[in-house]
Amino acid sequence: MTATPGLPPRGARNPGSQGALRHLNQERLVEFLLANGPSTQAELARGTGLSTATVSNIVRDMAVKGVVATSPVTSSGRRALLVQLTDTGDIAVGVDFGRRHVRIVLSTLGYEVIAEEAMALPLGYDVPGAVLQAAALLDRMLVAGAHDRLSVLAVGIGIPGPIDRRTGTVLQGAILPEWVGVRLRDLEEAFRFPVVVDNDANLGALAEVTWGANRGVRNLIFVKIGTGIGAGLILNGLPYYGFLGITGELGHTPVAEQGVICRCGNRGCLETIASTSVMIETLGHGVNAPVSTADILQRGRERDPAVLRVVSDAGTAIGQAIGNIANVINPELVLIGGPLVGLGDALLGPIRRGIQRNAIPVIAETTIVRISSLGDRAESLGAAALVIQGALDGNE
Amino acid sequence: MTATPGLPPRGARNPGSQGALRHLNQERLVEFLLANGPSTQAELARGTGLSTATVSNIVRDMAVKGVVATSPVTSSGRRALLVQLTDTGDIAVGVDFGRRHVRIVLSTLGYEVIAEEAMALPLGYDVPGAVLQAAALLDRMLVAGAHDRLSVLAVGIGIPGPIDRRTGTVLQGAILPEWVGVRLRDLEEAFRFPVVVDNDANLGALAEVTWGANRGVRNLIFVKIGTGIGAGLILNGLPYYGFLGITGELGHTPVAEQGVICRCGNRGCLETIASTSVMIETLGHGVNAPVSTADILQRGRERDPAVLRVVSDAGTAIGQAIGNIANVINPELVLIGGPLVGLGDALLGPIRRGIQRNAIPVIAETTIVRISSLGDRAESLGAAALVIQGALDGNE
Repeated sequence: MTATPGLPPRGARNPGSQGALRHLNQERLVEFLLANGPSTQAELARGTGLSTATVSNIVRDMAVKGVVATSPVTSSGRRALLVQLTDTGDIAVGVDFGRRHVRIVLSTLGYEVIAEEAMALPLGYDVPGAVLQAAALLDRMLVAGAHDRLSVLAVGIGIPGPIDRRTGTVLQGAILPEWVGVRLRDLEEAFRFPVVVDNDANLGALAEVTWGANRGVRNLIFVKIGTGIGAGLILNGLPYYGFLGITGELGHTPVAEQGVICRCGNRGCLETIASTSVMIETLGHGVNAPVSTADILQRGRERDPAVLRVVSDAGTAIGQAIGNIANVINPELVLIGGPLVGLGDALLGPIRRGIQRNAIPVIAETTIVRISSLGDRAESLGAAALVIQGALDGNE
Repeated sequence: MTATPGLPPRGARNPGSQGALRHLNQERLVEFLLANGPSTQAELARGTGLSTATVSNIVRDMAVKGVVATSPVTSSGRRALLVQLTDTGDIAVGVDFGRRHVRIVLSTLGYEVIAEEAMALPLGYDVPGAVLQAAALLDRMLVAGAHDRLSVLAVGIGIPGPIDRRTGTVLQGAILPEWVGVRLRDLEEAFRFPVVVDNDANLGALAEVTWGANRGVRNLIFVKIGTGIGAGLILNGLPYYGFLGITGELGHTPVAEQGVICRCGNRGCLETIASTSVMIETLGHGVNAPVSTADILQRGRERDPAVLRVVSDAGTAIGQAIGNIANVINPELVLIGGPLVGLGDALLGPIRRGIQRNAIPVIAETTIVRISSLGDRAESLGAAALVIQGALDGNE
């Protein structure tokens, strides 16, 4: 199997092309094989709803790429072709750079995590330095697991900022200004592997429909509430990247006409009143010790009224922005991620009320709103999924 | 060729299925054949960018359905297969029910309009009566053109209201309350043809990427400004229907915290301050003669300050709502439709300013905003396109 080519493996490819569909159908076959073990082509067709012609085309393709092996068998007295996943030993790497950490997962192409490490980074870290540290951590993980470097297909990297898919460059507006202008090539040089990059919220959404409890959900919004507030979209069953790749900028919904200036250059954006850093700042007024996200979690669980009020105000505003979007894209599911999800209903309740307030009744009633099931692993798992999907797509 | 089955031919079909993609590729081949005449399979592959295997699969399929005929020829000394569209005489009917009119177009499967009629309807018309009138008009058009009833594949119908795709029923929230609860079956009984229905804004969007100047645009929002304000979405090259089919409810973005109650049950929705009926009401204050949409157009062109102010306020608010959505779905193109588009820049300018105000800079700079090129024909052409696409899809 060849390594995945550079960015972008998905968005730049014409999503209406044979490739996008074939990829989806491959995923379906791989999932069925993972769940049911070796199966005949006829069983695969019955089990996935795909036509026998489609199954046979894709199986042939996957066999050429070495994803599956086929062998003739007899089934109910007829000749049939048995299909089974080959363990090629290929590894997909997912890396998630956050504000104060980097997390790395190694996965098989069958969505099985084989190693996972997280490392703290100082606030305001130097990006090239942190990237080299992460590359060294990955090298140590590969050595520790006795994995050949050649078995790594590619490294998927999640970055907390918008990425211009035309150029593979992190744009102005990144939560961490240090990331602005970083290019794919810089990352490839540091990691010495092929690299694919995506925005952290997009990867959260992808993780939910690949690793999470929400496989098969076709229209989903993943909202990450952190220092920034961003959304990743799965629409019609595929990650959605829009025209330039700059989607889900929910945090820049204006909510305060005369509000403060936002880092995007606009005024009164949602982020200026509802991000975790604004919550921390608000709760820090008149308090000697600085407040942290961990404090908000802890005090929220103890039902501290100030914390509950700040979280409630932020959650309601975020819910209102989600409601506006839900009116237009009618998602089946809205998943909330980010460091505050441990607050549970203290966060979800206000978000739901905000949606209720801004969405038309039928949308408010039918849209399911839940906490992400993947916690702080969502982005790194999504980054690995990006590599796995690229590998299954091949170089079409 | 068999007639299209009932609703929904597109939304309910799994858009990630082989069918959705095959349909797109078929459209590409049909467009190429329309533009270039009979072509060999190799020419089709070169001209469309599809693989030769895909072309040959789809051509075989279309030949079985009678959409194309194939004949062996010699091309550059080699044997090749010549493909040409067959004129089966099949007709797609598009019907657009507006607030005060019904418009009907008859089209070939090659997107050629062969007849077109519009008929005025009284304000607050009786729906079953109007549907029977439209069915009679269609019958007269078929007789006038000497078209056999059997040549009609299906009737596509555009309705100004949200449609629950689970049940094929017009939902509460329709601009014309008379339409609420109308079922697909009622329409099929009146027309005595298979019927497919969709929301008018969705059909406007579909018309733009099938009949309009925007074929090939993959991410587009069509915003219809009328008594209601609705949006149709083309995302990743396909009409987007979301979870239930209730998408593009842009008119219900709350914009006035303490505003008036909206027909949706919410408060201060965009429609309560920016629909054509509110503009008419506002301009009618203290004036003896009632104002109409035609008056707004006329006086706007004469640069009447009151009209320009009302249109500017409405346009800015609509632009702000569009800007919020553009931040999330990053469309390439926003098209404005509805009865006021004759105002041109007097309407577009404020909309662009509104987008500028609410969208992040990179989105505001790169999103193209234009008047729809199809005028009041957009919805009926979109309804015919729905039938044509259903026919090309066949019963997959």
